[in-house]
Amino acid sequence: MTTPHITLVGAGPGDPDLITRKGLTALQTADVVLYDALSSDELLAETPDTCQHIFVGKRAGCHYKKQDEINELLVASAYEYGHAVRLKGGDPFVFGRGQEEKAFAEGRGVPVTVVPGISSCISLPELQGVAPTSRGYADSFWVLTAHTRSGGLSKDLLLAPKSDATVIILMGLGRLDQICALWDAEGKGALPAMVIQNGSRPNERAWVGTVNDIAPRVAAERDKGPGIIVLGKTVSQHPEFKIEALAMASQVR
Amino acid sequence: MTTPHITLVGAGPGDPDLITRKGLTALQTADVVLYDALSSDELLAETPDTCQHIFVGKRAGCHYKKQDEINELLVASAYEYGHAVRLKGGDPFVFGRGQEEKAFAEGRGVPVTVVPGISSCISLPELQGVAPTSRGYADSFWVLTAHTRSGGLSKDLLLAPKSDATVIILMGLGRLDQICALWDAEGKGALPAMVIQNGSRPNERAWVGTVNDIAPRVAAERDKGPGIIVLGKTVSQHPEFKIEALAMASQVR
Repeated sequence: MTTPHITLVGAGPGDPDLITRKGLTALQTADVVLYDALSSDELLAETPDTCQHIFVGKRAGCHYKKQDEINELLVASAYEYGHAVRLKGGDPFVFGRGQEEKAFAEGRGVPVTVVPGISSCISLPELQGVAPTSRGYADSFWVLTAHTRSGGLSKDLLLAPKSDATVIILMGLGRLDQICALWDAEGKGALPAMVIQNGSRPNERAWVGTVNDIAPRVAAERDKGPGIIVLGKTVSQHPEFKIEALAMASQVR
Repeated sequence: MTTPHITLVGAGPGDPDLITRKGLTALQTADVVLYDALSSDELLAETPDTCQHIFVGKRAGCHYKKQDEINELLVASAYEYGHAVRLKGGDPFVFGRGQEEKAFAEGRGVPVTVVPGISSCISLPELQGVAPTSRGYADSFWVLTAHTRSGGLSKDLLLAPKSDATVIILMGLGRLDQICALWDAEGKGALPAMVIQNGSRPNERAWVGTVNDIAPRVAAERDKGPGIIVLGKTVSQHPEFKIEALAMASQVR
């Protein structure tokens, strides 16, 4: 007889060393792990030899499971094997649908433990030298997604350009022009802007500029991996932004 | 001769197991650690026996160091001992003044490595069963502080009640009534609201209610430790909120 138990673990933004000690302990005591495309092989290698690994993510050109199927499989795995770890990229509850998996499992009588992860929305700008908040630059930060369930732009994305917050947009690269146009319409075309792709991974790339020129800078590269958009005065702290600002000032002279 | 180097490490929200593997490695290779009141003794115990521990935080009734002094001490410690770890509660760059310490040290020629931490703003609601974002509840979250440098309420705190974001306010317990009045003025008196105190620690407490009744619920307890305020539909996912809603529904019948 096995006692079913699920641990929802945030894997962090990509670098396997950015998992928490608590998340690592969960992996090391897992009987089965359900993982997605953003989880690294290094983390799966931490599990016991007898642990089952089940891929439930989405990869280019491959079939993948629907959320309902993942929910069912997660609960069935816990009943079959015992301790099921659901390993999710970033933090499970920031656009991660962790809440839906948790509610489903608890509704089926399986206790769920939550282990937060380092969210890409905060950590990726930081690792590029840009703080979400910083005295004199930003008193708040606002994290949004460009995609709503209905497919349109969210109401909050229309309000965000009116704020002084550092605005961080996930899953928005495909709509970068449309998003920048919202800020430009608010008179913020010169606001510093940044795009980070494949953050905290060996193939990480970043572009810095302004609301008005960030889209042409990124251009065709936008399709080469998941990315986040950062809009706000705090982006001017990026090392490349400072160098460009100096170069522009010397051209003027 | 020592080579000075600083690692800025986020300690996480309180539970010492919520530090990252990378942060732990930094502690295990530290020659000196500068820590504040939110860092736990368990984390300091991870450092080598020869490592110096320097308290630079603020505790009730004790003197504490100003930011300028911390900056100077951090750089001097790195030059004297070698690898200096600056351990900060939560994430160093979310209202943590990490950016100021980093800029100061780099200006003095000391390289700085950044290790993000689990921020209390995201993780503490999660550990209470409330997701910052969740389909059908919130498409975005907005993290603010109630205190501005000038002492007034920030402009963004006036805009936030107009959004559908989950709003998370740090360092705001002393102004809870004033904050709730802003939401009430926007017609959101019935919006679910939560206060979490001493999050992820053994003495953690949480109160759930609505914008209109959360302040009297917390009442005099607000001074008993640092706390965060969460305002948004997503708070209705808290287990106690569901029980209360059921009880109220049965009274109506």
